[in-house]
Amino acid sequence: MIRYFGLIGILVVLFAAGSWQDGSLSKELESAELAGYGQNEAEEKASIGARTVVIPTPVWVIGSYDKEGKPNVMTSSWVGICSSKPASLMTCLREATYTHGNIMERKAFTVNIASESLAHMAAYVGRVSGRNVDKFQKTGLTPVKSTLVDAPYIKEFPLVVECQLTKTVEVGSHTMFIGEIKDVKADKPILSETGVPDVEKLKPFVFTPGSSKFYGIGQSLGNVSALAKEAEKK
Amino acid sequence: MIRYFGLIGILVVLFAAGSWQDGSLSKELESAELAGYGQNEAEEKASIGARTVVIPTPVWVIGSYDKEGKPNVMTSSWVGICSSKPASLMTCLREATYTHGNIMERKAFTVNIASESLAHMAAYVGRVSGRNVDKFQKTGLTPVKSTLVDAPYIKEFPLVVECQLTKTVEVGSHTMFIGEIKDVKADKPILSETGVPDVEKLKPFVFTPGSSKFYGIGQSLGNVSALAKEAEKK
Repeated sequence: MIRYFGLIGILVVLFAAGSWQDGSLSKELESAELAGYGQNEAEEKASIGARTVVIPTPVWVIGSYDKEGKPNVMTSSWVGICSSKPASLMTCLREATYTHGNIMERKAFTVNIASESLAHMAAYVGRVSGRNVDKFQKTGLTPVKSTLVDAPYIKEFPLVVECQLTKTVEVGSHTMFIGEIKDVKADKPILSETGVPDVEKLKPFVFTPGSSKFYGIGQSLGNVSALAKEAEKK
Repeated sequence: MIRYFGLIGILVVLFAAGSWQDGSLSKELESAELAGYGQNEAEEKASIGARTVVIPTPVWVIGSYDKEGKPNVMTSSWVGICSSKPASLMTCLREATYTHGNIMERKAFTVNIASESLAHMAAYVGRVSGRNVDKFQKTGLTPVKSTLVDAPYIKEFPLVVECQLTKTVEVGSHTMFIGEIKDVKADKPILSETGVPDVEKLKPFVFTPGSSKFYGIGQSLGNVSALAKEAEKK
């Protein structure tokens, strides 16, 4: 998939040269004329087209077994949480990927979250196909068989989520795999005192479609409740 | 939704005190016994239960109109990109939210990405319901009527995505709204030379379910292709 993003990156450059707007969007943008809102002069924004450049996106490494039981991992950023009860998440994969066939077959997958120190691993397993490469052997990462779902997780990754496939949804070029979370497992050093993953200890990172980079997580901006109160004061 | 996370936060503390495992998961974890992979001694991970604590998640502010044309915004972190062609994304919302009814009615929504300086706004609009509060009036944010879809975007937010609803999927406690991206619009100062949003200029932030905080984006870890080569060297 990362290879695919690389291609998008090249296309973006070519596309940008040819079709970038002239910056004047006054015809396209209308003032909001809504009861009670008056006439709003729209800030001039540049249209950059119907593209998946909504940043940042998470970086999840998806673990699965193939028909023969060979474990595979691939990186996915077209992902998200779907439901709180039952706790569910989704990953969207192209049919061409090896993992797509694996999840269809095994009805299960894991989500593995890397720390910054494992960024090169997350990058690598997103660039090559499990059809051609045994990614565990190549990287030295260790597959651990889940006892809850028919999928492997990565021993060296500090946060792993075991998912049972509950639904597939076709969305254009991708198939969405919705999985019910059967358990979340974490290396103890990344947990907070209240037993939840602490982002400052986990040190996960995000992906930026368009520029195709990974970025670490920065400073805390504060607790959401406290931040909301700041807005109320104004 | 953020209010909901606050509740989860409290529950987490209560839950952690009572049901945290004793740390010994040796019965639950099995060694991987896969052809060619030998016997893998599984690192001891702590089970933290079937929960949506997969961090970090994006912070998207969803714009919609109600029946009467009143614009509303709410924050959602159960979100993700779904498809590259057509470019599509999804947000998952509980039926109880005002936005849920709005999108069902109008078949459209926007995704608005805030910079760090707007974090308090993103926090606030996730804590109160548009049923009780006119969030645009309260915050002073400005709704701009999209000319492409039947939804408003936020003038002050530097990156906005206009989406036409294409599918809804029920996933447990939430309804997933899948939208086709009709356009992405950005304030020019946040664009890179190649015309894509530059995370270092946009300064978006992420949410950490469990601790209920916002975190900024940190340092670049590098280009994904370059990182992948590092893994191959080893």
